[in-house]
Amino acid sequence: MRISEIAELLGRPLEGDAEVQIQGVAALDDANSDELAFARETVSVERCAASAAGALIAPVGLEVGERPVIRSPNPALDFARFSRHLASEQQPRRGVSPQAWVDPSAELEEGVRVAPGCLLGARVRVGEGTVLHANVVLYNGVELGSECVIHAGCVLREGSRLGDRVVLQPGVMIGGDGFGYEAGDGGRLEKGPQVGGVVIEDDVEIGSNTTVDRGSLGDTRIGRGTKIDNLVQIGHNCDVGEDVVIIAQAGLSGSTRIERGAIVMAQAGIVGHVTVGERAVVGPQSGVMRDVPAKTRVLGSPEREGRLQTKIVAALPRLPDLLRRVRELEKRLKRLNSDES
Amino acid sequence: MRISEIAELLGRPLEGDAEVQIQGVAALDDANSDELAFARETVSVERCAASAAGALIAPVGLEVGERPVIRSPNPALDFARFSRHLASEQQPRRGVSPQAWVDPSAELEEGVRVAPGCLLGARVRVGEGTVLHANVVLYNGVELGSECVIHAGCVLREGSRLGDRVVLQPGVMIGGDGFGYEAGDGGRLEKGPQVGGVVIEDDVEIGSNTTVDRGSLGDTRIGRGTKIDNLVQIGHNCDVGEDVVIIAQAGLSGSTRIERGAIVMAQAGIVGHVTVGERAVVGPQSGVMRDVPAKTRVLGSPEREGRLQTKIVAALPRLPDLLRRVRELEKRLKRLNSDES
Amino acid sequence: MRISEIAELLGRPLEGDAEVQIQGVAALDDANSDELAFARETVSVERCAASAAGALIAPVGLEVGERPVIRSPNPALDFARFSRHLASEQQPRRGVSPQAWVDPSAELEEGVRVAPGCLLGARVRVGEGTVLHANVVLYNGVELGSECVIHAGCVLREGSRLGDRVVLQPGVMIGGDGFGYEAGDGGRLEKGPQVGGVVIEDDVEIGSNTTVDRGSLGDTRIGRGTKIDNLVQIGHNCDVGEDVVIIAQAGLSGSTRIERGAIVMAQAGIVGHVTVGERAVVGPQSGVMRDVPAKTRVLGSPEREGRLQTKIVAALPRLPDLLRRVRELEKRLKRLNSDES
Repeated sequence: MRISEIAELLGRPLEGDAEVQIQGVAALDDANSDELAFARETVSVERCAASAAGALIAPVGLEVGERPVIRSPNPALDFARFSRHLASEQQPRRGVSPQAWVDPSAELEEGVRVAPGCLLGARVRVGEGTVLHANVVLYNGVELGSECVIHAGCVLREGSRLGDRVVLQPGVMIGGDGFGYEAGDGGRLEKGPQVGGVVIEDDVEIGSNTTVDRGSLGDTRIGRGTKIDNLVQIGHNCDVGEDVVIIAQAGLSGSTRIERGAIVMAQAGIVGHVTVGERAVVGPQSGVMRDVPAKTRVLGSPEREGRLQTKIVAALPRLPDLLRRVRELEKRLKRLNSDES
Repeated sequence: MRISEIAELLGRPLEGDAEVQIQGVAALDDANSDELAFARETVSVERCAASAAGALIAPVGLEVGERPVIRSPNPALDFARFSRHLASEQQPRRGVSPQAWVDPSAELEEGVRVAPGCLLGARVRVGEGTVLHANVVLYNGVELGSECVIHAGCVLREGSRLGDRVVLQPGVMIGGDGFGYEAGDGGRLEKGPQVGGVVIEDDVEIGSNTTVDRGSLGDTRIGRGTKIDNLVQIGHNCDVGEDVVIIAQAGLSGSTRIERGAIVMAQAGIVGHVTVGERAVVGPQSGVMRDVPAKTRVLGSPEREGRLQTKIVAALPRLPDLLRRVRELEKRLKRLNSDES
Repeated sequence: MRISEIAELLGRPLEGDAEVQIQGVAALDDANSDELAFARETVSVERCAASAAGALIAPVGLEVGERPVIRSPNPALDFARFSRHLASEQQPRRGVSPQAWVDPSAELEEGVRVAPGCLLGARVRVGEGTVLHANVVLYNGVELGSECVIHAGCVLREGSRLGDRVVLQPGVMIGGDGFGYEAGDGGRLEKGPQVGGVVIEDDVEIGSNTTVDRGSLGDTRIGRGTKIDNLVQIGHNCDVGEDVVIIAQAGLSGSTRIERGAIVMAQAGIVGHVTVGERAVVGPQSGVMRDVPAKTRVLGSPEREGRLQTKIVAALPRLPDLLRRVRELEKRLKRLNSDES
C-alpha cells in the first residue's frame, strides 16, 4: 500500500514522498524501512531519528527526518485505526457459507458474513455488515446489531441481544444459566428460574473465554463502550454501565452494579448486590464486600480505601518485629513495677 | 398459555379466573398483566398488592388481590419448575441433525437430540432424551445418561461418563489432561500418565467455560447433585462429593477432596491432597492449604477459622497506628528509665 | 497387549513371563492382575508385594515378586511414555475429514489428521503428523509444526505460529486481541493496534480454556518446553521463557516477562512490564507488582520475599491480642507516670 493511500484513508495530510510502499505496521523502535510506525506527542526527536521506520504518523511540528510523515492530532489513535483496517482483511468470505446452518426464519441484513460451522437458530436477527467467524452458535431468537465481529467458537444463548459494533473474541459464552438454586427437599438444590436475557450495548468488546450469564428474571446488561478482558465472570442480572473497564479474570457475582467509567482490575472479585460507583477503581485481586463510592479507589480483600490499604501493606512487614518489641516492653515495665514495689 | 394449564402442569390448585392468558414470567415487582410472578412466604401483603402481575404463585393463605393465584407449599420452586418448562422449548430439533457427524458404533437411545456440528466418536453412548446443542464434541467412548442437556461448544474427552440429568452450560471442557509432569533430563518436563477418566454423577450442573480434568490414573469424580459455577478449575483426580456448591472462578488442585454439602465460594483456591469436610464453607478468595474440618468456616489466604480471620481483618486498619504507639511507648519507657538512673 | 511387546516398545529389558496380557494401566495400589503399574525408586518392597498388578515397571534391583517386570532407570517416565502410547490411539481418522473445511491455499504435510468441523483458513500450514481434533479453527496464515495435538474447540487467530509437538487441550484460545485502549473523545475508549502474533515454541503444552493474546505490535511468546495449566490468562506481548510452569487460573498482564525455569503457582497474578527471573517461584494467589529476582521465592499480595511473608502470616493471628496488650501497656505506663508526678 502506498503511504499516500494510507493518508487518504485516515483523512490526514501527508508530507514527503507519496510513493513510498508500506508492507505493515510496527512499534517505533522495531519498525523496518517498509513499515509504518507512530510517534506520540511525548517522543523525543532523537528516538524518532533513530527509528528505521519507512514512514511515520506524527504530531504536527515533530521533526521526523527525511521519511514521509502523516500529520495527526492523535497519532496513536490514527495508527490504531489503520491497524484495524489491516486486521479487517482477515475475514470470512462474503455471504453465508454453505457449510453454515441457518434456520429459514433467521433474518440477515446486507453484508453479513457467516463462516462455516456457524449455527443460527430460529428468529435470529443479524444486522448489516456483521461478521460471524467459524463455529459461532446463536440460539433461537438471538439479535445482533450491525458491524459486530463475533470470533470463532462464541456461543450466544437464547435471550441475548447485542447492539452495534460489538466485538467478541474467541470462546466468549453469553447467556449461560445464572448460578441460582433454591433449597429443596433433604438439602438438595433445585434450580431457580433462569429465563432472563443478556443485553450488550453498542461498542462493547469482550475478551476470550469470558462468560456473561443471563438474568434469572430480567436482563444482565453491559453498557455502551464497556471493555471486558479475558476470562472474566459476569454473573446473572449484573448491571454494568457505560465505558467501564474490567480486566482479566475479575469476577462479578449476581446483581452487582458497576457504574459508568469505573475500572475493575485483574482478578478482583465483587460480591452480589453491591454498587461500584462512577469512575471508582477496584484494585487488582481486591475482594469487594460493600458499596464503593464514586471516584474512590479501593484495594485489598476485603476491600479498603486505597491509602489505608497502602499503609497497612507498608506496615505489615514490621508486624513480626512489633510482636517482639511489645514483649520486650512488657518485660521492662514489669521490671520497673517490681523495682518500685 | 392459560393459567389453568400452568396450574395443571404444576399439579397445584388454582383460585380465580382460569382463562387468564400468561405470556411469560417475571419478578413480582417487574411483572406485567400478562406475566406470572411468585410471592415467597415472607412477602408482605402490600408488596403483593402493588404488583401488576397477571397471576401469582403464592403460599396458601396469602392475600393476593383479585388476580388468579396458584397455591403452592413452595412458590419459588414451583415458579422455577414452570420457568424451566418454558426454557425447555429452546431445543434442537428431534433426532440427529444430518449436519452432525456420528460414528456408526455410537449408540443413541430414544428421544436423543443432536444439533448440527456435533461430533460423536466411536462407541459413544447417549441415554434417553439427552440433548446435545450445536458443536458439542464427544470423544471415543464417552457415555451420557438420560435427560442430560449439553450446551453448545462443550467438549468431553475420552473416558468421560455422565449420569442422568446432568446440565453443562456452553464451553465446558471435561477430561482435558491433568497437569502432571515428571522431571526428565536437563530440567525438561516430561508428561506423566494421563489415562484416567471423569465421572459426573446424576443431577450435576456445571457453568460456562469451567474445566474438569481427567484423572492421571483413576477418575476425577463430581458427586450427585453438585452445582459448579462458571470458569471453575477442577484438577485431576479430585473427589467432589454430593450436593457440593462451587462458585465462579474457584479452583481445586489435583486430588483435592470436597465432602458432601460443602460450599467453596468464588475465587477460592484449594491445594492438592487436602480434604474440605462435610458442610464446611470456604470463603471467597480464600487459599486453603490444610484440611478443613466438617461444618467449619474458613476465610483468608492462607485460610483461618472464620471468626479469627474476621478479628484479624478488623484489627488490620489499626496496625499502622499501632506501630506509632509502640514507638511512643518505647520512648516514654526509655525516658522513665533514664529518669531513674 | 503382551508384556513383551510393551518392553520392546519402551526399549527396556523384561524379566519373567513374556506372555502375560496387559489390558491397561493403573496406580500401584489400585492395579488389577491384567494391568501394568510402576514402582518408583522410593517404593518399599512391602508395598510392591501388596500390589495386585499383573506386571510392573520397576528400577533395577527392586524385588517385585513373581510377576513379570520391565526394568527401567526411570520407571515413572517409562510408565508415562506407555500411557501416552495408549492414549495416542484416541485420534481422528487419517487424512482430512470431508466434513472439515480447508482453504485450497492451505498446505498440509504428510500424516496430518483433520477431524470434522475443523476450519483451516487461507495460507494455513500444518506440519507432518499433526492432529486437529473436531471443531478446531485456524484463521488465515496460522502455522503449526509437526506432531502437534490440537484438541477439540481450540481457536488460533491469524498470526499464531506453533512449533513442533505442541499440545493444546480443549478450548484453548490463541491470538485474541490484547486488552489495549487509547482514551478517545469524551472518555470513550478507542481500541489500540492489535496486529502482532503469538509464537509458541516446541514442546509447549497448554491446558483447557486458557487464553493467550496476540501482541499489539510484535509477538507474544511462549518458550520451548513450557507447560501452562487450565484457565490461565497470558496477556499481549508477554515473553515466557523455556521450561516455565504456570499453574491453573494464574494471570499475566501485558508485556510481562517470565524467565527460564520459573514457576508461577495457581491463581497468582503478575502486573505488566515486570520480570520474574530464572527459576524464581511465585506462590499461589500472589500478586506480583515488581521484578522478582532469579531463584527467589515470593508470596502474598502484594508479593514479598517468601520467608518474610511466612513470618507475617504466622504473626497475624496475634494481631488482635497485640492491640489489647499495647492498650494495657499504655494504661500501666500512664499510671506509672502519674505515680511519679
